[in-house]
Amino acid sequence: MKQCKEKLPDLASRMEKIHPFHVMRVLKQAQDMEKTGREVIHMEVGEPDFTTPEPIIKAAQNALTNGYTKYTPAAGITELREAIARFYQERYGVSVSPERIIITPGATGALQLVLAALLNVGDEVLLPDPGYPCNRHYVELLNARPRPVPVSANHDYQPAHVDLVSRWNAATRVLMLASPANPTGTVLALHELEAYAELITKQNTLTRSKTHLVVDEIYHGLTYQDDSSSPLQTALSLSNTDNLFVVNSFSKYFGMTGWRLGWVVAPENYIEALDRLAQNLFLCAPTVSQYAALAAFKPESITIMEQRRQAFKQRRDLILPALREMGFDIPVTPEGAFYIYANCHALCHKAGMNSTQLAADILSKTGVAITPGLDFGDYQSDEFVRFAYTTNTANLDKAMHKLKNYFKQAGFLVAS
Amino acid sequence: MKQCKEKLPDLASRMEKIHPFHVMRVLKQAQDMEKTGREVIHMEVGEPDFTTPEPIIKAAQNALTNGYTKYTPAAGITELREAIARFYQERYGVSVSPERIIITPGATGALQLVLAALLNVGDEVLLPDPGYPCNRHYVELLNARPRPVPVSANHDYQPAHVDLVSRWNAATRVLMLASPANPTGTVLALHELEAYAELITKQNTLTRSKTHLVVDEIYHGLTYQDDSSSPLQTALSLSNTDNLFVVNSFSKYFGMTGWRLGWVVAPENYIEALDRLAQNLFLCAPTVSQYAALAAFKPESITIMEQRRQAFKQRRDLILPALREMGFDIPVTPEGAFYIYANCHALCHKAGMNSTQLAADILSKTGVAITPGLDFGDYQSDEFVRFAYTTNTANLDKAMHKLKNYFKQAGFLVAS
Repeated sequence: MKQCKEKLPDLASRMEKIHPFHVMRVLKQAQDMEKTGREVIHMEVGEPDFTTPEPIIKAAQNALTNGYTKYTPAAGITELREAIARFYQERYGVSVSPERIIITPGATGALQLVLAALLNVGDEVLLPDPGYPCNRHYVELLNARPRPVPVSANHDYQPAHVDLVSRWNAATRVLMLASPANPTGTVLALHELEAYAELITKQNTLTRSKTHLVVDEIYHGLTYQDDSSSPLQTALSLSNTDNLFVVNSFSKYFGMTGWRLGWVVAPENYIEALDRLAQNLFLCAPTVSQYAALAAFKPESITIMEQRRQAFKQRRDLILPALREMGFDIPVTPEGAFYIYANCHALCHKAGMNSTQLAADILSKTGVAITPGLDFGDYQSDEFVRFAYTTNTANLDKAMHKLKNYFKQAGFLVAS
Repeated sequence: MKQCKEKLPDLASRMEKIHPFHVMRVLKQAQDMEKTGREVIHMEVGEPDFTTPEPIIKAAQNALTNGYTKYTPAAGITELREAIARFYQERYGVSVSPERIIITPGATGALQLVLAALLNVGDEVLLPDPGYPCNRHYVELLNARPRPVPVSANHDYQPAHVDLVSRWNAATRVLMLASPANPTGTVLALHELEAYAELITKQNTLTRSKTHLVVDEIYHGLTYQDDSSSPLQTALSLSNTDNLFVVNSFSKYFGMTGWRLGWVVAPENYIEALDRLAQNLFLCAPTVSQYAALAAFKPESITIMEQRRQAFKQRRDLILPALREMGFDIPVTPEGAFYIYANCHALCHKAGMNSTQLAADILSKTGVAITPGLDFGDYQSDEFVRFAYTTNTANLDKAMHKLKNYFKQAGFLVAS
């Protein structure tokens, strides 16, 4: 008699809806290949290859020497809230009171904080599909309901009003937008964001909903066109509305992923509730990260980050034409983040594979790791893959050559 | 016409049940007094006065120099999971597989993780009243229902079986226990924990519930009696049961509050789900904190922590008889954590105040800050205050003298 019959865990029903990331399987496959000595070029990872800028590291080490190891206020240290407010003012000419800024453990903390303060059981959240996969899960955590809104190249991968309206009802509580967006890299313009805000006002009256706008700007600063139309500025220009929450992070532009530090700019009359919730959910964001982040706004840090931004732009400009040449359909030029969401419909068709199978085949045959569309939603995800340009140009160049050869040898090439 | 009419925020209903900590008001009052130049002795704070031990600080600084600033796996770095497993083995002779240990952003992260994996809407959680105030709120976050179980000195401030049974039903999903407990400092013995586990098995059959045991051991290591009956050991001795979760933290014994680092030991068949959830909720615990914590288990760190434990014991032994002499009723000697939960019923009666009023009066007249019972629950909370011995003996000595004079002058002294 075998005794290894494993007992199944007895889980909350939400766990059925919280899927593992498919990219984890890609990563596992890549690591197994690397163990056998094969070279893998990582274009699946949503994390900059750069480490944290030296001035921030130094600030952290000094803070530790000075004994800054205890709890801070739940909303964060005053100096950091003030530094962020100053940054908004100096960089974007936008005036935000430091009291409206709450420091959180990553943008993940900020998103959970805002949603927990707003969502009741059964409330609905409109969010783009494809989009950042965790967002759906934060909604499920609170027993609310994510309502994915398909987005396509036709509307720059941002929700079309008609598609929002058709899903809007009295239970709609939050519209989530992202700019620059993951996985598509598109950026919202001022007039577009204003139009969404107006739509909310109109729909709240029409449907008797009480919908709030949550804008995810965690890729803020990583834009490659004219920076004057920064999403940050656009979102904050709407800051006199009393239902806008802007979520941000030190992870991407500031190169501080492992530090788990983000923030939210909230309407003044929500601050007390968010602070009260933060006291319970987090106690505080990591203290050393907060003191380190004070150095993120120094000119010497900004200089490093701006150099990195230029590097990201060069990378994008290297792989975008190369991918298009191979037959990936990328009608909208991604203007921000460090991703290209590429339609591989024609290639998949020729290969007789869906995008998940194609990504696995590419990895095993070329050693180039990319993320299948399935991780970002359901809408046409079988026809998309995401390329992250979070590795250097030499690697990207090599990856493009490997991919081109792969498609050529397999006879999948669809474009000249 | 005044235009300052403030608009009320439009919040989720759970926010009505998530109260601010009363100690925050105490803290504010204390800070205001300090601003006017008055001396305040802080006995309200649940944070050791010691900073993080030097070897841990150094390890963090080295990790930063070596560029450990990126994401780690969601469950934590393997080295730390292994180090914790080794610690269990070496200190308590308990064998735990590192795979069963998940690193979290503080014990708060661990508690949220476990509850989110278990609780559906309307599920019930049995927890001690008085107890750690956030626990109720984590349950509310998930739209589940906290069922407070009054605990008293008669049962060492741990739930009596009869009081659990009377609140048990098919919706009961979790029994939360804490050892050493906050605010009461009592410690569960092995046989008591085993009896709770047996009760769960029995009640699950009787009530058709699927109840799990979650033991909060975040004050682990801070015990002042025989350490061989450590709660850690007791809880883990039950580790062959498949429904026990043990939550722990680097904050208290290891002096790492601001680092936001904790862990959970979970049954093997729950690890996949917890890992999946951690990927979404946290991405990972702060990276530098994880590398720093590797040094927490070194002999030179343990030596420092054991010295601190002795210091805490001396402090307890200093204030416990002093408080009893003043008329605070403390029938059960607190054996762990750094709190004394004192019944001030007789003093309150003489003074004509409840414990919240008494704490405020004591602060304003003596400069000694303590926490009213209200922060820890409803049961008899008007008759209790919590003293935290998180300040040095000179301060504690001074505080005891001030308190004694206060009661003497006011004529409140009830004991000789």
